[in-house]
Amino acid sequence: MKALLLIAHGSRSAIANHEIGTLAAQLRSNIDGIELVEHAFLEMAEPTIVQGGNKLVAAGANEIIILPYFLSAGKHVAEDVPAEVALIQKQHPNIKISMRTHLGAASGMQSLIDSHLPSTT
Amino acid sequence: MKALLLIAHGSRSAIANHEIGTLAAQLRSNIDGIELVEHAFLEMAEPTIVQGGNKLVAAGANEIIILPYFLSAGKHVAEDVPAEVALIQKQHPNIKISMRTHLGAASGMQSLIDSHLPSTT
Repeated sequence: MKALLLIAHGSRSAIANHEIGTLAAQLRSNIDGIELVEHAFLEMAEPTIVQGGNKLVAAGANEIIILPYFLSAGKHVAEDVPAEVALIQKQHPNIKISMRTHLGAASGMQSLIDSHLPSTT
Repeated sequence: MKALLLIAHGSRSAIANHEIGTLAAQLRSNIDGIELVEHAFLEMAEPTIVQGGNKLVAAGANEIIILPYFLSAGKHVAEDVPAEVALIQKQHPNIKISMRTHLGAASGMQSLIDSHLPSTT
């Protein structure tokens, strides 16, 4: 089964963390071709990235797509998230893991911003 | 003139900060009804939020739309960004300032994520 692991930064705010869980739940029912979706946090909250990976494998995932839910390619995206993802791969060497670029690099970002602004015309 | 101030977290990584400047430059030529666009950082980089606001006012803005370029509604979005924006308003009481919800709350977010994943069907 193909799975998506949405990785967010994590916050001290329970509301902010809950927002990520809600998004993952919405994606779960809405993305064609992906059967399992979990979220995980790099810092300050659980599930951790390794916990998220383990959850997907326990649920039957044999392929995991990692989406770093970050807007900028700072140290977290360049180093910290890949280091945690490497731990998932080490624990589960037979699972195919691939990593997308961070969300801020999505080609539709400008359109999303445009649609999120108040109508100006 | 109507202006947009894109507020990002800011990073120790010059590459990450540059990414925000590039996005602001792209938005500058692509959003109907908005004549000025600047970016600013909450932490760790310049321009600061107040500097960004001052730049827009100096360029002739009389209305500023603030877009918190954050994915989660943590403390930064709930408290820190509004506190800095209040300083802009205090310095420029005649400018109309309005604040959008953070980008993570955009209704098109699920679609953006979907389009950013590899084709799975």
